[in-house]
Amino acid sequence: MGTLTGKMLIGSTATFGADGTVQGLDPSTGEHLAPDYGLASAADLERACALAAAAFDTYRETSLEARATFLETCADEILAIGDDLIVRAMAESGLPRARLEGERGRTVGQLKLFASVVREGSWLEARLDPALPDRAPLPRSDLRQRHIALGPVAVFGASNFPLAFSVAGGDTASALAAGCPVVVKAHNAHPGTSELVGVAIQKAVAKCGLPEGVFSMLYGAGTKIGSALVADPRIKAVGFTGSRGGGTALMQVATARAEPIPVYAEMSSINPVYLMPEALNARAEALGKAFVGSLTMGAGQFCTNPGLLLAIDSPALDTFVTAAVDALKASAASVMLTPGIGKAYADGVAALVGHDKVTTLARGLPAEGPNRCEAAWFTTDADAFLADEALQAEVFGASSMLIRCKDQAQLIALSEHLEGQLTATLHMDQGDIALAKALLPVLERKAGRILANGWPTGVEVCHAMVHGGPYPATSDARSTSVGTLAIKRFLRPVCYQDLFAELLPESLANGNPLAIWRRTDGVLGKD
Amino acid sequence: MGTLTGKMLIGSTATFGADGTVQGLDPSTGEHLAPDYGLASAADLERACALAAAAFDTYRETSLEARATFLETCADEILAIGDDLIVRAMAESGLPRARLEGERGRTVGQLKLFASVVREGSWLEARLDPALPDRAPLPRSDLRQRHIALGPVAVFGASNFPLAFSVAGGDTASALAAGCPVVVKAHNAHPGTSELVGVAIQKAVAKCGLPEGVFSMLYGAGTKIGSALVADPRIKAVGFTGSRGGGTALMQVATARAEPIPVYAEMSSINPVYLMPEALNARAEALGKAFVGSLTMGAGQFCTNPGLLLAIDSPALDTFVTAAVDALKASAASVMLTPGIGKAYADGVAALVGHDKVTTLARGLPAEGPNRCEAAWFTTDADAFLADEALQAEVFGASSMLIRCKDQAQLIALSEHLEGQLTATLHMDQGDIALAKALLPVLERKAGRILANGWPTGVEVCHAMVHGGPYPATSDARSTSVGTLAIKRFLRPVCYQDLFAELLPESLANGNPLAIWRRTDGVLGKD
Repeated sequence: MGTLTGKMLIGSTATFGADGTVQGLDPSTGEHLAPDYGLASAADLERACALAAAAFDTYRETSLEARATFLETCADEILAIGDDLIVRAMAESGLPRARLEGERGRTVGQLKLFASVVREGSWLEARLDPALPDRAPLPRSDLRQRHIALGPVAVFGASNFPLAFSVAGGDTASALAAGCPVVVKAHNAHPGTSELVGVAIQKAVAKCGLPEGVFSMLYGAGTKIGSALVADPRIKAVGFTGSRGGGTALMQVATARAEPIPVYAEMSSINPVYLMPEALNARAEALGKAFVGSLTMGAGQFCTNPGLLLAIDSPALDTFVTAAVDALKASAASVMLTPGIGKAYADGVAALVGHDKVTTLARGLPAEGPNRCEAAWFTTDADAFLADEALQAEVFGASSMLIRCKDQAQLIALSEHLEGQLTATLHMDQGDIALAKALLPVLERKAGRILANGWPTGVEVCHAMVHGGPYPATSDARSTSVGTLAIKRFLRPVCYQDLFAELLPESLANGNPLAIWRRTDGVLGKD
Repeated sequence: MGTLTGKMLIGSTATFGADGTVQGLDPSTGEHLAPDYGLASAADLERACALAAAAFDTYRETSLEARATFLETCADEILAIGDDLIVRAMAESGLPRARLEGERGRTVGQLKLFASVVREGSWLEARLDPALPDRAPLPRSDLRQRHIALGPVAVFGASNFPLAFSVAGGDTASALAAGCPVVVKAHNAHPGTSELVGVAIQKAVAKCGLPEGVFSMLYGAGTKIGSALVADPRIKAVGFTGSRGGGTALMQVATARAEPIPVYAEMSSINPVYLMPEALNARAEALGKAFVGSLTMGAGQFCTNPGLLLAIDSPALDTFVTAAVDALKASAASVMLTPGIGKAYADGVAALVGHDKVTTLARGLPAEGPNRCEAAWFTTDADAFLADEALQAEVFGASSMLIRCKDQAQLIALSEHLEGQLTATLHMDQGDIALAKALLPVLERKAGRILANGWPTGVEVCHAMVHGGPYPATSDARSTSVGTLAIKRFLRPVCYQDLFAELLPESLANGNPLAIWRRTDGVLGKD
């Protein structure tokens, strides 16, 4: 780990910030990890934003091939870090090797997937309405539309995916794909991992001959340098994954600007799981065990963790509960990402333990060492859940709540009461279809992804994925932060009317030289 | 005009509001027009929103054909009102017959255009990533994505297009096309026109057998019933065209909600027009006359009115000024839409007349009658314009400002200083291409539509149009309020993972029964 310097990255430079320091920490031991990281000052932020703004017009007009190659080069440079990246990420996050190797594969894979999306070119949404000079009563001008990048984007690294939702994660990949320079506010929970990945991106920028301002990365507090970044007039959009408090604070900064900007904050979700009657009759015990597997995986530190179970009272539900209780009681306490997350988890669980309408069904094994997540499973009745909004609050970690409903009507009423969610899951059999049909319109209004007979943890990076949903799951239900649709978050349409051929972008030129899908008079084609 | 009742429309009912009254007014005479219109109470708002929410799940799942037919039926019912609509709109707006007949054609045309968009089905953005059960190390689930409607939409009628941007205007058409019920807050400047069109939509809802809550229309003050409508938790998006003050007030209400919602407010733009050197050399006099024609058309009451001219000092520019001054001095004062707009125009012009850095170049002919717009043209130098943000404020009506720049560098620097705009116009010849190339990246960052050798007034309703742009031109640069792309404002993606075939929407069914464009593993096709 001799390569770590503690320096932030501003364009092509690396500088040790003078505004205080932060260190990585091994959450399994509480020990600090060298080196110190210097925090960015207002002047550092100014330089990063100025470089990003200066790079924007050039970067957004790179050819499809050049931009795709750059994304692939980012992927290659991340792989070229080698095992140092995995070792440092393990130390900083407490996550196991296999998980982080998988996450690196996902991070590299999504950069390459976005490269293929950029090359394909549909994201430009090119539209041409040719002139109609002889139309009566008025002729029509030649009108052409494409999408262009919004401008420099502020990306906030997330603690729970130190690779896939961090410096070169989904937000960065989709913003770069759209043509936006990126200024990352590195997460203080993994500064060393951030430096390694940040330097890889910096190398890719240089290798591809792009303007240095395409990428910068700053260390600092979210409440200080993070807020200042979102407030900077050169920043035109924000990508964030984290807590509801953090996300809503950034939303407030963004709307208070002289020019309000879009914030894509993925925040808070308890991911309701419906245990439907026939599915319980068929496999209650297996479902109980599988639930605990999904709940406790990665110490439950997933946005899509199953934090709420809903079912109609039945003997099969009792069987499910018994199986899940047994499995949960045998689950080992795993290391959480940071002491702060560990404390928030313990506080959230303690509040539920002490809630007079909540019964504790089971706790996991006691912790051996600091900062461990002892899994927790609670239950309450539907009336109590409906009466207390606090019972809908996410407890980040392996905590979940079972609501026993007396009948289908109560199950549906309770679903209407839910806040916005990333996911909703149906465990169901053929005999449950009628109930599922009644629930589906409600779930479509509440969630970004609806799944059957699986668990919401595990989010595929592909074209059809939606990792999003109505507030407070995210700040903007019109988009996704995982999957290729995410490129659209960072684009806006521009129309060119009767513009000289010499001035038209290649994507809108006569004869379709890029051979992309375009819509001519509303008809999709490649002519 | 015996058909006018003064009643608001809530679902299938018509009720006289009990919360005060408002009357239409003939702005050319100042006379009130019968009947009185009763204003909506909180209870009326509650009923309208409850009906909209109740209609949502049914309406958003209407077939493509049924929804398209409904939009066409709306168009037919508006035409069936006949000349009464034109006569009433003339009386309430002061706009001439030919303009309003054209606007009716546009209104009906855009409903029919959205019907064709709905039928074509690409707006669903259907995506399918088939299961990969044998993939290592982990199999892939079956993932399918479509877009669904956001929910009930609040639409605010605009005063300056009593048909095309009002009750059945672009916002309503695009929201209904997306599958959103609409609650209109009628503009108090044309209550009778609103009633006629509202009843036409109400009839279309009934004829098509749709739930009554698909459409309601309330009368009331924007600051009272308008704000309450945006604050209602059942409303999921807002469409607005009007002033910057009105739009930003609605944005504040929307962001202060427990669940913030998108606001599409089209607000304020001064639409810079660049008079480039070679174009001026070739046709300064003709450009001067044409400018005055665009400026004074419809008393300048267009969002795309040319409120700012930019040029480099030259003798040809002097020729342009002389021609424009002569034309402007001969321009008759036309009736403005409302006394409030007339007063705001007079106040805005008076402030510029009294500004110590601003010179009045010309005024139009004196008014004969109340509430007339006497056109006004001003000039200032680039330094003064850069020093005073107030000189960028829109004066709604036939007012414009010429900035003389000393060279190209100053012209570009001044362009960088501009706020967000709906349009930017280049008057240019072949010899101006180098300067246009230098300006274009700046203009793309500033405006939604860039046009050459035309005037920004006149907005084609088509596929490639963008009537939008960075703040404060609109609240959300990612969209347009004119043209077919507007349907996307009211949609959000939903992903279905391993969902039973019986539960999948038809747009995502195996075999593509709707024969729409879909993306399978990222590849567009109709299979």
